[in-house]
This record gives sequence, structure tokens and C-alpha cells, in this order.
Amino acid sequence: MANPIDFYFDFSSPYGYFAAVKIDELAAKYGRAVTWRPILLGAVFKVTGGQPLPTIPLKSSYAAHDLARSARLYQVPYRLPTKFPIGTIAPARAFYWVGDKDPALAKKLARALYHAYFVEDRDISNPEVTGNVAAKLGVDKAELTQALNDPAVKERLKTEVDAAIERGVFGSPYIVVDGEPFWGSDRLDQVEKWLQGHW
Amino acid sequence: MANPIDFYFDFSSPYGYFAAVKIDELAAKYGRAVTWRPILLGAVFKVTGGQPLPTIPLKSSYAAHDLARSARLYQVPYRLPTKFPIGTIAPARAFYWVGDKDPALAKKLARALYHAYFVEDRDISNPEVTGNVAAKLGVDKAELTQALNDPAVKERLKTEVDAAIERGVFGSPYIVVDGEPFWGSDRLDQVEKWLQGHW
Repeated sequence: MANPIDFYFDFSSPYGYFAAVKIDELAAKYGRAVTWRPILLGAVFKVTGGQPLPTIPLKSSYAAHDLARSARLYQVPYRLPTKFPIGTIAPARAFYWVGDKDPALAKKLARALYHAYFVEDRDISNPEVTGNVAAKLGVDKAELTQALNDPAVKERLKTEVDAAIERGVFGSPYIVVDGEPFWGSDRLDQVEKWLQGHW
Repeated sequence: MANPIDFYFDFSSPYGYFAAVKIDELAAKYGRAVTWRPILLGAVFKVTGGQPLPTIPLKSSYAAHDLARSARLYQVPYRLPTKFPIGTIAPARAFYWVGDKDPALAKKLARALYHAYFVEDRDISNPEVTGNVAAKLGVDKAELTQALNDPAVKERLKTEVDAAIERGVFGSPYIVVDGEPFWGSDRLDQVEKWLQGHW
């Protein structure tokens, strides 16, 4: 069985969302599974000196335009959320907490959280909102909300983020196929070519 | 006659070089000319807070890998120059000085300068080297070297760079088709789709 593809993303990253919509179908064409790994760009930016898109002169307005245009081209439902970017500790912790018991459910939850944020304009940085999204999928909301403040769950996310940085992850989405890294939703075509055979 | 495409680039930008190799042929397929407009990323970064790639932790080593891999995929001859990045005042001034008399020759010069830097590993930040590259194309080297310090030529480049920033150019390559901006050599597929018909 071929190695799973590692898919790193931040829940506040619109390009990460675009990749999330596409990547499992793409991987399945080549008999690959995908391991989803939410990270915190805030922690990454402390290492790289990166800045959130909306704070960068010139680039921010381009990005807003590029995102809307790319979403139309790739036919992905999308709107720039009213509050953007957001901290994504709550959805990321929720993902790992659910995923340690049920990886398939965690992936469903990630898709639902991305949809809530980038389609329904709901502020998933709020643990209540993340809890409501999870509850719709049958997760116990009270138990989840409590888990979000559990030191073990906090540590679980921190370990994942540290490991990602250690591996060189500096943006979202960041996709690793058999050790080969690809950054950006606009590298999905190269990911596909790589799966067809290296060059 | 359809509007020319504006192609902004820095002579030290490898992704700009990739686009330079491709863009005229791409545009010609759709009956378009391309106006080449060298800029200085150093001036742009003063506005955006951007940093040269090799100084950014994690991203720099990814970029080196991505550049080599993309060059192989697109079959563009390329090596990361020994000295990278470089200041590109000399080649950019040379371009506008030649171009004001002979636009076609300026484009030839730009291609030759990019080739000298990214294939032959010659340091085109050195006015002597830029002069030698230009001389090969029949430009008077002594006259060019003198022009590089001419206040009017300096002002010519400054005006271009200021106008680019005013227009929102924040990176290289930056391509504008009928007012529609595209950033990055990995947007050439979208440039082509845009030329085929907006979406």
C-alpha cells in the first residue's frame, strides 16, 4: 500500500480550504489516502517572520481578488469571511481530539468547519461555533468544549505544530507526497503529476 | 488590436525568469503583444515589508527545491546563481535606456540578461557584466555604461518602479491582462484561460 499523502493546513487559510475540497478525490485517483494535519500559521509565522495576508500592503487586495477568481475557476463555493483571518486553536484542537478516536469523523469535521467559515461566514475561532458544527455530526458538544481546554489536548496540537515546523512547513496548504513537499493550492497540478510519476 | 499584456519582473527573480521564457509565445497564441517592465523588488519590499527569499527561514529551502523542480517540469534551463539575490539596478536601467530607442532590442537584451544570470551564473548586478551582455547584441558598451549613471536614466527607472507600485505590483512576475492582475509564474495557466475568455 502506497504511503498516505500528508496535508497540512490552517483552518483560517482560504487556499488551504480550496485544497481541502480537492485533495482526497485527487489522491484517490492514484490509490492514495490523505492524512489531514491542521496547524497554526501563527506559530509558523513566529519562525518565518510571515504576516497574515490582510496586513500586507498591495498583496492583501490582490489576494482578495485572486481568491474570488480562483474559487470561480475551480467552482468551489467561497466568500471572504467577515472576520479574517482568525485564530484556529479551537477547530484544530477539536480535529485532533475527534481524530484520535475516529479519523474519518475528524476529516468530516474539518470539511464542515471549513464550510462553516468560508461558505456560511461563521466564526469558527469561537469554541461555541466549533462545538455547534461538531454537534451536527454527532459529537457530544459538552464533552468537546471541555476537551478544548484539556492540557493533554493542548499538548497534542502543540506537538503536531512543532513537528510540522520541524519538517519545514511554512504555509498553508503544504502537501507532502513521499517526502516531496508542495506549497499552495496552485501546486495541486504538480502534486498530480508527481503521483503519475516523478520528473 | 487588443491591448498589450503588461509583464512586470525583477531581473533577480527566478520565477520572473520562468515567466519571461514563456510569456511572449503564450500571448502570441491569442494575438497579444507583451510590454516588458523590469522593476526593483527592493523598492517594492520597502512598501510591503517583503523579504528576499533566501533570508526567510523554511521557505528559502523549499523555494530552492521548488525552483529546480519547476524548471525541470517546464523544461527551462536553470541553475540557482552563486550570488542570489542581487540588486538589479544596472540591468533594469540598461533595459529602459535601450528600450526607449529600440523596444525589440530591449526585449532581446532582457532575455540575454536573464540567461546570463540564471543559466551562465554571471553576476548581472555588475554594470560591466550587463555591458558585456548588451555588447554581444550590438549595443555600444561604453555608451551604455555611461548611461547607467545618467540622472535621466536613473529617473526613468524610478518612474517605472513608482508607477508599478502605484498599480499594485508587489512581486515578480506580475502580469496584467486588460486590467486583470496575475502574480507568479504559476498563474500563467490562469493568464491563458483569461485570454481564452473571462470566467
